[in-house]
Amino acid sequence: MLNYRAIVNILFALLLFLVMALLFPLGVAFLYDDGDIHAFLLTIIFLLIIALPGFFLTRHSRELKIKDGFLVVTLGWLLFSVFGAIPFYIDGHIPSYTDAFFETMSGFTTTGASILSDIEALPHGLLFWRSFTHWLGGMGIILLSLAILPLLGVGGMQLFKAEVPGPTMDKLSPRIKHTAELLWGVYLILTIAEIILLRMAGMNWFDSACHTFGTMATGGFSTKNTSLAYYNSAAIDTIVIVFMILAGTNFSLHYRALRGKPLIYWKDPEAMFFIGIILVASVFIGYDVLARLNYDPGKTVQYTVFQVVSIITTTGYGTADYEKWSSASQLMLFLLMFLGGCAGSTGGGMKIIRSLILVKFGHKELKRLIHPQAVLPVRIGQAVIAREIVTNIAGFILLYISLFAFGVLFMTTLGLDIESALGSVAATMNNIGPGLGSVGPTDNYHHIAPAGKWFLSFLMLVGRLEVFTVLVLLTPGYWRK
Amino acid sequence: MLNYRAIVNILFALLLFLVMALLFPLGVAFLYDDGDIHAFLLTIIFLLIIALPGFFLTRHSRELKIKDGFLVVTLGWLLFSVFGAIPFYIDGHIPSYTDAFFETMSGFTTTGASILSDIEALPHGLLFWRSFTHWLGGMGIILLSLAILPLLGVGGMQLFKAEVPGPTMDKLSPRIKHTAELLWGVYLILTIAEIILLRMAGMNWFDSACHTFGTMATGGFSTKNTSLAYYNSAAIDTIVIVFMILAGTNFSLHYRALRGKPLIYWKDPEAMFFIGIILVASVFIGYDVLARLNYDPGKTVQYTVFQVVSIITTTGYGTADYEKWSSASQLMLFLLMFLGGCAGSTGGGMKIIRSLILVKFGHKELKRLIHPQAVLPVRIGQAVIAREIVTNIAGFILLYISLFAFGVLFMTTLGLDIESALGSVAATMNNIGPGLGSVGPTDNYHHIAPAGKWFLSFLMLVGRLEVFTVLVLLTPGYWRK
Repeated sequence: MLNYRAIVNILFALLLFLVMALLFPLGVAFLYDDGDIHAFLLTIIFLLIIALPGFFLTRHSRELKIKDGFLVVTLGWLLFSVFGAIPFYIDGHIPSYTDAFFETMSGFTTTGASILSDIEALPHGLLFWRSFTHWLGGMGIILLSLAILPLLGVGGMQLFKAEVPGPTMDKLSPRIKHTAELLWGVYLILTIAEIILLRMAGMNWFDSACHTFGTMATGGFSTKNTSLAYYNSAAIDTIVIVFMILAGTNFSLHYRALRGKPLIYWKDPEAMFFIGIILVASVFIGYDVLARLNYDPGKTVQYTVFQVVSIITTTGYGTADYEKWSSASQLMLFLLMFLGGCAGSTGGGMKIIRSLILVKFGHKELKRLIHPQAVLPVRIGQAVIAREIVTNIAGFILLYISLFAFGVLFMTTLGLDIESALGSVAATMNNIGPGLGSVGPTDNYHHIAPAGKWFLSFLMLVGRLEVFTVLVLLTPGYWRK
Repeated sequence: MLNYRAIVNILFALLLFLVMALLFPLGVAFLYDDGDIHAFLLTIIFLLIIALPGFFLTRHSRELKIKDGFLVVTLGWLLFSVFGAIPFYIDGHIPSYTDAFFETMSGFTTTGASILSDIEALPHGLLFWRSFTHWLGGMGIILLSLAILPLLGVGGMQLFKAEVPGPTMDKLSPRIKHTAELLWGVYLILTIAEIILLRMAGMNWFDSACHTFGTMATGGFSTKNTSLAYYNSAAIDTIVIVFMILAGTNFSLHYRALRGKPLIYWKDPEAMFFIGIILVASVFIGYDVLARLNYDPGKTVQYTVFQVVSIITTTGYGTADYEKWSSASQLMLFLLMFLGGCAGSTGGGMKIIRSLILVKFGHKELKRLIHPQAVLPVRIGQAVIAREIVTNIAGFILLYISLFAFGVLFMTTLGLDIESALGSVAATMNNIGPGLGSVGPTDNYHHIAPAGKWFLSFLMLVGRLEVFTVLVLLTPGYWRK
């Protein structure tokens, strides 16, 4: 039996948290005073009218059980997008609510797919809010709330299981609240560091903050129509590359590195596999780009590595139009979309650790043909991966690919050509943003039919919440008894 | 330790079998006398010079062990293609040996991908040989999937170990021999039935035989440049549809049906799932085609069902150019390519039973989130599928998809656009023939670079032999000790 009262109570608490989050763009709106103050004020008032009485009427609820966590996480993300879209809508810069919802879901899921063709036309408050949704989503709205919800008298241990991105192998701290605070601290330190570095490299404070939000969350919303290509700066590109890689790496490694163990990265098989793939893909594409286009070698390295890192970390910032590259390079980028970041990072996709375990699992199955009787465990580094986890990961990837195939089929029924259908589904489900074809890096999602926008929004959510979290709600068994 | 001497002996025996097979097209060549007699005579003499002494020198070898089976099966198929290509090459109609090899591998693997642009220019003997390679390959695959692969632990048919007709003996050869005889009997009966029916529907005996070979083997080589569209006959289309479905169904079901249990099909979950997918896909595409193109409803049903059945059974005969259909319909056909036929049929692809188990497995993993402690077996009909088999199938599909992704990447490095790369790899690996883009149903594979032709030939073999059988040879462990 689901604890509906407790679930509703937490959802109201989350809406109150959303009100607090909206105070930041409201402040920016006051600062620049370019016409969007009312949009935030009205949204905040509206939310308070709904959420305050709701929250107090449902207080003193029972503890959540694990099963409730799935519903809280999914509905939490959904509500943030439903209500977070309101400022865009009532301000009038995004006159369709479908579009506003798509943009906001794209923000909170750290996807970065946009329906805007003229981003720079937005007032500063809305631009800030757009990027800030990334930042909030990046660490996980729920995980962020883990540090706050306990203050409201609500335990959160169960939520962690459904929320933590990827199959994290070693827990940082037995106490979830403590863990949340530690990771949040790491996230904040890296965020501040990148803002300062970007400022030093020549960006103004506003753009530094917005682009940092997009980087640290591996989101990809920019304040410029041409994304980071606007700056055409090797310094900025380098800073963003480094921070995209950091954001795509397990944050518990950063925590331990900051605690005085900087060599921890070298001992982590997933991080090393991640770096290895980035190198191999960069050499592959760099060679291809150098051979076919007449960039100079320096620019080739700069553009290639940036695009590779931007895609594999699922950020989606662009400094070059990869649709002008060869089919082979585009396909390599397309495959990277699915690999995604490391577990415990803000990156999307299937996660590196899953691919790593998949490779070892495939090898094991081949070995089993030669030695049918042998017991062959899957190992990552020193650790033996439990059979249930290997099975679960195999199931995850198969479900992921099936959903992808179904998604592409659905998008073609809306009239998209095959390449655009592949690109739009891969780019949203893996939380990247720009795809291929008509939703490539120089295009946007405005032209997609409303049904397609809602469906892609759903895919963003499913991808961000590791598929199972959302799909379990679609099984009759979840709602029984 | 591999029994090299015994392996070599069997391979020589297979070459002698190839000589016997070549007597059939030789007879046809004598009958029509249009210039290809020497091609077969020279090949037969050449093979006898090699294989006769080789066979007798290596006689009295020890029994084969299971591990030797992988090498025998893979090399057997390879040698048939290497030597079976010679008549095409020395006759001069296929002046490149690469092309001749591609065409022959395409034949023996029942793929049906062709490098010929003017098929009708070939003399009758070569045309017959081309189609006859399909028939031999189809026979080989039934034997392989029902009698040999289960012993190697490969392929969906371990599931039906007990259901395979024949005495359950521990000794390898008597059991294989008996099973083979029964299944060949079924194969022969269906072949004769189709030849007679096609003749009655208006084809001449020669074309009836060749098209029957292509149907029963789910191969797809035609004797006409425009494939079965040449006849534009509802009767012929209907006959071929029925026999494609029969060829794509488990032959042990046919055996039992012929033994007086015609209702056996209704009790088989795989066969029913197979028929269900054909119906759903036909309605999906039929609706789409009817809405967009102005075929009349009768033609729509005829064309749609034919193309759906031709693709899902991995035959590859064409009566309509599906590249003129919508992206959605093309993508649906593309997805069907991977589903493939039933286990124990001549169809390629991943096999229906694996998709069926995959669906149940995904559902089980979702259920496990709600009931983490429950033991949830995967069931097909009444039977509980052993956990090792489910894991093995998950591994198979993941390996299959990984190889597909790698294949597409490789083909794009040769300069193919993404759609053609997707199409060429899907159509060869799944043993279909026609793909998408520049290798669509009205095109051929002539324009592919030689490296691509060898690679696609490799994929045909890997796909046909259920991936594991070939890939296990690439692991160092296979060759150790």
